Amino acid sequence: MIKTDILIIGAGPTGLFTVFEAGLLKLKCHLIDALPQPGGQCSEIYPKKPIYDIPGFPEILAGDLTKNLLEQGKQFEPGFTLGERAETIEKQEDGSFIVTTNKGTQHHAPVVAIAGGLGSFEPRKPLIDNIAYFEDNGVEYFIKDPEVFRNKKVVISGGGDSALDWSIFLANVASEVTLIHRRNEFRGALDSVEKVKELKDLGKINLITPAEVTALYGNKQLEGVTVTKGDEKILLAADYFIPLFGLSPKLGPIGDWGLEIEKNAIKVDHTRNYETNIPGIFAIGDVNTYPEKLKLILCGFHEATLMCQAAYRIINPGKKYVLKYTTVSGVDGFDGTRKEAPKAVVQSIQ
Amino acid sequence: MIKTDILIIGAGPTGLFTVFEAGLLKLKCHLIDALPQPGGQCSEIYPKKPIYDIPGFPEILAGDLTKNLLEQGKQFEPGFTLGERAETIEKQEDGSFIVTTNKGTQHHAPVVAIAGGLGSFEPRKPLIDNIAYFEDNGVEYFIKDPEVFRNKKVVISGGGDSALDWSIFLANVASEVTLIHRRNEFRGALDSVEKVKELKDLGKINLITPAEVTALYGNKQLEGVTVTKGDEKILLAADYFIPLFGLSPKLGPIGDWGLEIEKNAIKVDHTRNYETNIPGIFAIGDVNTYPEKLKLILCGFHEATLMCQAAYRIINPGKKYVLKYTTVSGVDGFDGTRKEAPKAVVQSIQ
Ligand SMILES: Cc1cc2nc3c(=O)[nH]c(=O)nc-3n(C[C@H](O)[C@H](O)[C@H](O)COP(=O)(O)OP(=O)(O)OC[C@H]3O[C@@H](n4cnc5c(N)ncnc54)[C@H](O)[C@@H]3O)c2cc1C
Ligand SMILES: Cc1cc2nc3c(=O)[nH]c(=O)nc-3n(C[C@H](O)[C@H](O)[C@H](O)COP(=O)(O)OP(=O)(O)OC[C@H]3O[C@@H](n4cnc5c(N)ncnc54)[C@H](O)[C@@H]3O)c2cc1C
Repeated sequence: MIKTDILIIGAGPTGLFTVFEAGLLKLKCHLIDALPQPGGQCSEIYPKKPIYDIPGFPEILAGDLTKNLLEQGKQFEPGFTLGERAETIEKQEDGSFIVTTNKGTQHHAPVVAIAGGLGSFEPRKPLIDNIAYFEDNGVEYFIKDPEVFRNKKVVISGGGDSALDWSIFLANVASEVTLIHRRNEFRGALDSVEKVKELKDLGKINLITPAEVTALYGNKQLEGVTVTKGDEKILLAADYFIPLFGLSPKLGPIGDWGLEIEKNAIKVDHTRNYETNIPGIFAIGDVNTYPEKLKLILCGFHEATLMCQAAYRIINPGKKYVLKYTTVSGVDGFDGTRKEAPKAVVQSIQ
Repeated sequence: MIKTDILIIGAGPTGLFTVFEAGLLKLKCHLIDALPQPGGQCSEIYPKKPIYDIPGFPEILAGDLTKNLLEQGKQFEPGFTLGERAETIEKQEDGSFIVTTNKGTQHHAPVVAIAGGLGSFEPRKPLIDNIAYFEDNGVEYFIKDPEVFRNKKVVISGGGDSALDWSIFLANVASEVTLIHRRNEFRGALDSVEKVKELKDLGKINLITPAEVTALYGNKQLEGVTVTKGDEKILLAADYFIPLFGLSPKLGPIGDWGLEIEKNAIKVDHTRNYETNIPGIFAIGDVNTYPEKLKLILCGFHEATLMCQAAYRIINPGKKYVLKYTTVSGVDGFDGTRKEAPKAVVQSIQ
């Protein structure tokens, strides 16, 4: 059982910044995310695109924002349960919660902050009869650790940035990379498209278009795929099949937790630090709704900050918190580090 | 008469970010500040100190944050009335407002956003009988344009960073710089203290401590000061006397505008985009108060963003605004510039 002060569901920008604000209040955080990496929409949908409305950044790539937020929170040593979906929640007699994921990992905390964005990111799966049978046995919708594919035969399917970029990356890792797309045209960053062309000409990526993977075979483990190209059927040996057809967010199991839901979002009381109808459960960032709500990253930052104040009061009943400026008081990490402004000297000049 | 869409009182971080958010909604801003430069507390009190809790910046100097915010808003061409204090407000028949400064500059706008922080920064003045007589005639509490002091005799008084830093700066501009402090000890950044020592040894700064300026003389224009050092009285010729004893913020005239005030701050309805009790006047950032309010920079950013939505509805009655992501829609400046994410290409690979 993982124990923490604030259990955060969703490691998007809102969840990540919560780690920092909670840390200032000496509260520890643990984050659960269905994705294999932190960053939410920023890292999954548009990591290489610029955002222009993060205060103080005339321009920042979404991927760099994620990196910065991780860096900003790291001295508060957040825990992560990645690649798992928070599935059930049980309120304990003492008012605390146990949250269990689809893989059975259990988490225990007095405060739960749902920072689930548009929902848990779930892969769009191709319609192939026995695909479920090979999931985790050769069929992968996410790439968590590219080393798994070293010297393996990999078939990637898809026509967007993920398919292009992972084909490029794995061309130097796998023994064989085949990229299959149902059109001749790919849609992605210009340099990705050009790089795939180049690797194809060098024979490092095997390209089959317009075509589709229509069948999978193997014993327990995947051994090959059938590719249908017009009337032709091609049999390809494959250790891995990676369909990259995008992810779609689904509010999913959280919808059944007894929370008030409105327009596919969780209703919160924005005059009470974004608490939901269940005391001790808060919803912050894109996942919540209240009058005048805007689904923007900067709003999640403020909501997270106010939520931490309420969490502090739940966790430290009766204790009064006095706001301190980081500039004046510095930042004391849980890892023993300290950041502080250079001190002024008092010195006589003779 | 200066005309604008949103008249912002206070050019601190909150006011500056408002320019950007308003610009996204095609609303123009004009800012009034009592200080000669934008940045509010960040530029006046701690420009060289790091802040650790701006989301996405593990560390940023307050002065750099100000620079970044100016850069982020510049394509929306904000106007500035600096070095003037907003003094009176009059509601017009059509619901718009005319705001007049202590120097008589008039501003007209349908929406007023008070981002006045802890109040208008007013200099702490030394107790010298006829000092008011020489104000603007040799006595300066702020340095707006250092060129004014070129080849002049300048007397600076004070023992903190401003006194040290301006003495250093003006040592290369003025014909004579005298720094006077009532103690031998100065309090400031180590390198500033050391630099003053060095310039003193080079004869470029004339240092008199422990001492005080106790009288001013001159006809209409300042001609000299009397310095008292123990029992000794020293007569110094001086074109300028610059007492730098710090600034203290005063809510000041805004306190008499009929706004509901609580704990020296303006009460707002945080469920209605931080509107005050007077429709069309909003208060954002440090200057406002509501249940759970935190006086932090990041809170002002969110408040400014929500306020702009309400301003939009006042200025464009009946028109519906659909939120756009800057990443997706880009940013169109009023100066004709456009920022946008590199477009994806759709290209066949053969
Ligand atoms: C193309 C695009 C451009 C954008 N441009 C901008 C912009 O310019 N400016 C701006 O402010 N915003 C922009 N946005 C919106 C911005 O990305 C979101 O506001 C932001 O990501 C919300 O952050 P969040 O942390 O609240 O949620 P998300 O980023 O959505 O993260 C939520 C995370 O929670 C996880 N999760 C949800 N439920 C569960 C569960 N049950 N178990 C485990 N994990 C779960 C999800 O997998 C996800 O990773 C853009 C969005 C897109 C798609
Ligand atoms: C030493 C110090 C360290 C700090 N550290 C942090 C930190 O680490 N993190 C953090 O988030 N915050 C910190 N703060 C607080 C932070 O600086 C404020 O929250 C922030 O400056 C508020 O911004 P603002 O724009 O609302 O107001 P301000 O920055 O106060 O700006 C308001 C401006 O309005 C002007 N004004 C007011 N009334 C009038 C008028 N009638 N006419 C003309 N002009 C007027 C003032 O002159 C001023 O320039 C710190 C503050 C100090 C002093």
